[in-house]
Amino acid sequence: MSTKIAVAKGDGIGPEIMAAVLRIFEAANVPLEYEYVEMGKSYFDAGHSTGMTPAAKETIERLGLLFKGPMETPKGKGVKSINVTARKVWNTYANQRDFRSLNGVDTVFSKAGIPINLTIVRENIEDTYGGIEHLLTNDVAVGRRIITRPGSAQVIRYAFEMARRKGYTKLACGHKANIMKLTDGMFLETFYEIAKEFPDIESSDIIVDDLCMKLVSRPEIFQAIVLTNLQGDIVSDLCAGLVGGLGFAPSANIGDNISIFEAVHGTAPDIQGKGIANPTALLLSGILMLRYLGYTTAAAAIENSLLYTLEQGIHTGDFGDKSTPSANTEAFADAVIAN
Amino acid sequence: MSTKIAVAKGDGIGPEIMAAVLRIFEAANVPLEYEYVEMGKSYFDAGHSTGMTPAAKETIERLGLLFKGPMETPKGKGVKSINVTARKVWNTYANQRDFRSLNGVDTVFSKAGIPINLTIVRENIEDTYGGIEHLLTNDVAVGRRIITRPGSAQVIRYAFEMARRKGYTKLACGHKANIMKLTDGMFLETFYEIAKEFPDIESSDIIVDDLCMKLVSRPEIFQAIVLTNLQGDIVSDLCAGLVGGLGFAPSANIGDNISIFEAVHGTAPDIQGKGIANPTALLLSGILMLRYLGYTTAAAAIENSLLYTLEQGIHTGDFGDKSTPSANTEAFADAVIAN
Ligand SMILES: CC(C)[C@H](C(=O)O)[C@@H](O)C(=O)O
Ligand SMILES: CC(C)[C@H](C(=O)O)[C@@H](O)C(=O)O
Repeated sequence: MSTKIAVAKGDGIGPEIMAAVLRIFEAANVPLEYEYVEMGKSYFDAGHSTGMTPAAKETIERLGLLFKGPMETPKGKGVKSINVTARKVWNTYANQRDFRSLNGVDTVFSKAGIPINLTIVRENIEDTYGGIEHLLTNDVAVGRRIITRPGSAQVIRYAFEMARRKGYTKLACGHKANIMKLTDGMFLETFYEIAKEFPDIESSDIIVDDLCMKLVSRPEIFQAIVLTNLQGDIVSDLCAGLVGGLGFAPSANIGDNISIFEAVHGTAPDIQGKGIANPTALLLSGILMLRYLGYTTAAAAIENSLLYTLEQGIHTGDFGDKSTPSANTEAFADAVIAN
Repeated sequence: MSTKIAVAKGDGIGPEIMAAVLRIFEAANVPLEYEYVEMGKSYFDAGHSTGMTPAAKETIERLGLLFKGPMETPKGKGVKSINVTARKVWNTYANQRDFRSLNGVDTVFSKAGIPINLTIVRENIEDTYGGIEHLLTNDVAVGRRIITRPGSAQVIRYAFEMARRKGYTKLACGHKANIMKLTDGMFLETFYEIAKEFPDIESSDIIVDDLCMKLVSRPEIFQAIVLTNLQGDIVSDLCAGLVGGLGFAPSANIGDNISIFEAVHGTAPDIQGKGIANPTALLLSGILMLRYLGYTTAAAAIENSLLYTLEQGIHTGDFGDKSTPSANTEAFADAVIAN
């Protein structure tokens, strides 16, 4: 039995890192089949307002799972980020990012001997991401921040289930309910309501500014944190910084019908086509996807090879010891495969 | 000539750390006179809805400068944070926090050999801090986020002037204008408008999530950053974490008529009255206040003594090497005075 998924190669370095990752999947005999879909910057340019063809949309909705490279949204008034649109159109309400120190990827925290291992679950649709704003006068801009109880409930329930699945013992809710008493208040109330269904997971809450202070000083006290959209966006990137940047952070957008696994780093047009891009984030997202699909043995095998490769000091030019010879995308993938 | 300022001792450990700081001021012959004002938790309890007596308000408005210890706002629906109210009532539109690594205060970053030296200027009144929220239905909460051009202009101008005064060469604007296109868009537009008046300061902007990622990996690339209120709140606390926590971060709330210098850490009721609280943050805020008042020599003298005291390993029980004898509040102040 094999699973068919939709694949969007992405813009810039997207096609190169996608090729490397799929080559690793093949070597590991991952039972996946791919349908490639047309999505990304050139489809905006070709007049598709959402950055994808109708056929791409149909394929993704039929298969229910999209594996995607980084994409660029053309700048311009009224053009919405393709990533944000994709999350909204398909109601992928939970964004999960796993952050873990990798041997061979030096960071301030690895130098200080502090291991990072935590998961951020971010609400992926509501909050100020609705883009509901207007100019009251030329000098006064008003934006609306909307939080709903069902929207909060679905991401919070996902976070608790994820925590349980991963064997975590606790989940914290980050919020600013001391200031945004009704909106974040509703999120927080819902958190404790749903916590009752998960007596095996210790639940607590923390004000988001205090959370950020603790994340940069004692990140080891957290296992998983669930937050509203914008605060979750900020905290996710903060955590990416703890482990070496977006190049080392996988991302999953989970919905009831469609889920998207993606690299959230940029498209790096400056190094496009040079074959030197770092496929680690996309590979980590792929590993997350394999686990999600239940291919846990293949996921573990690839993950171990990746960790061992990084530990050996094999790295693309964007990180690692500059004095050791750095590998290009292909050589990095070869090393993962060999391991 | 001496300057008269209003002093609010604060709640919890407030009176102890205020006494220590004023004793250090006295030893340094700081030409200040004090009028103590009634403000804090007990004044809420006594029925003053803003947490201060009418006489306190009158005194602060007459003197234009308040030096305040940490304060507690009683919990309860409809009760607004005394700190937030004070900022709004007196239009202290700019919140400045200076973050600097201190020898003797170990952090992840000091262990990695990365020195921190940066200033966050946060807009202090607008944004979601207006508290304009309502329940559309029992399941839908709506909050309003308001950004104005004059409100943005005054804090941004303050940030540029501060950067110039401190001899900084650059100022960055943190924002999320890719999502909040009109509100943060207005803040960003105003930033570049005002930047034209300061050609000697290099101006740039950075998306707030990317900013947080960089702050935890390469904080040395920043000198000063100006942000809207909530994002500034989050980034300020993140930076406090980089230097050891709120116990080591001074805070100034600057307005055209009234300014407030305060310790932003908690009131630590658990150690109240034990004489063991750490007065460093309040002392650093006091030093910032002395500089603001033009008493630069006294400010430098006290600052040097403080830095030297910390470097000697003299510390209160909340930080530092647990194997060296720790000082209580009085002994710490004595050491600063002796130095
Ligand atoms: C590109 C941007 C719109 C997006 C977001 O804010 O969600 C990004 O920061 C992310 O986290 O995927
Ligand atoms: C206590 C809280 C309301 C306040 C804020 O959010 O501004 C605090 O975090 C601060 O930074 O002074």
